[in-house]
Amino acid sequence: MLSPIKNTKVYEQVMEQIKAMIADGTLKKGDKLPTERELVEMLQVSRTSVREAMRAMEIMGLIECKQGGGNFVRDNFENNLFEPLSIMFMLEKGDTKEIIELRKILEVETVALAAARITEEELLSIGNIIEDLKHSINEETAVKIDKRFHYEIAKASKNSLIISILNAISSLIDAYIKNARTKILAEGDNKVLLSSQHEKVYIALKKHDAAEAAEAMRQHLDFANKYMSK
Amino acid sequence: MLSPIKNTKVYEQVMEQIKAMIADGTLKKGDKLPTERELVEMLQVSRTSVREAMRAMEIMGLIECKQGGGNFVRDNFENNLFEPLSIMFMLEKGDTKEIIELRKILEVETVALAAARITEEELLSIGNIIEDLKHSINEETAVKIDKRFHYEIAKASKNSLIISILNAISSLIDAYIKNARTKILAEGDNKVLLSSQHEKVYIALKKHDAAEAAEAMRQHLDFANKYMSK
Repeated sequence: MLSPIKNTKVYEQVMEQIKAMIADGTLKKGDKLPTERELVEMLQVSRTSVREAMRAMEIMGLIECKQGGGNFVRDNFENNLFEPLSIMFMLEKGDTKEIIELRKILEVETVALAAARITEEELLSIGNIIEDLKHSINEETAVKIDKRFHYEIAKASKNSLIISILNAISSLIDAYIKNARTKILAEGDNKVLLSSQHEKVYIALKKHDAAEAAEAMRQHLDFANKYMSK
Repeated sequence: MLSPIKNTKVYEQVMEQIKAMIADGTLKKGDKLPTERELVEMLQVSRTSVREAMRAMEIMGLIECKQGGGNFVRDNFENNLFEPLSIMFMLEKGDTKEIIELRKILEVETVALAAARITEEELLSIGNIIEDLKHSINEETAVKIDKRFHYEIAKASKNSLIISILNAISSLIDAYIKNARTKILAEGDNKVLLSSQHEKVYIALKKHDAAEAAEAMRQHLDFANKYMSK
């Protein structure tokens, strides 16, 4: 239950109470939050504090404010407005090598999980992505489709924590894919090679063969990484 | 450079401009941000919008507001006030199995990176942690030391992205370690077993043997996971 707030950092405590309502199941995905006025009364805090807390949670991608309709817990967590992890990465002056390492660690194992759990519908969708990628003429579109390929595989792993992490660094991964593709495609027949690598991952997923899928993804990422290290 | 803002979602754009200053290196770790008054003038926005943006970035753990001293870019990103990834995990009704999967994926590979990169100083610190853990009487303290063990290894990997990710889900990992230890220690001689597992990881790190470190970590996590699945 909500209870009045006494301490100093007020907006922080408003958020803690919302978090507690999420933790105990009172608030679920898609639910409407109490109105700002209700929160002010329930928690005995200023309207400014409530609004700061709401804004912060909106920016983090946890809630959405519908115009004139109040605040809602979001029901999907794609497309965050702001990615703290990506910004920390910039502040730490992280280099591309770190993104390479993380992708190899996460995506090789994630595709293995996906191989075991992928549904027919998800296979169909990945099959379509590969066809679209093969026939894409515009590189800007191709980058978007390539990202989609990796993201759909993560989704097929059914591990929401891994999916959220990849979402939280989505702009870093996007930039990586964009740069890697530019470097790879600068060389002759690499478009065919790239597309056969994607296909190998897809075939392994269709066979639900975790080891083969992991190996195909490892080869694909090693290939991309080789160009990024040049 | 900062430029005046025209659009509607004002606080969001204030954040984008701060982000741009971080991306281009104008703002670095530990730097003082322009004052709220200066931002109001430079960006031609309301004080409320500036304050909302600052609050949101403070809550995300990107900046800190020193009392009477203005806003600073943080120089370390431990101890976030709020963890959006952990909250998304709750909203997705993620179960413990997902944390197990992620830890196995991340930590087994991270300890392998750490084996190659760990410094003498870091080895000393991990050695001390193991001694402290062996002699801890109070379980509440032991949980904290155990967390420290895993976190120091991540730090020794020198991959700031992996470190930030582990920080961003720190409360999930804490809860996991706490529960796992309770279940493990409920059985007879497990304290000795647990401590020998930590020691094996440490010995492999001292030898800078990546494969042995990964295997020791895998065995340690498998052991913990077995109890968590009971």
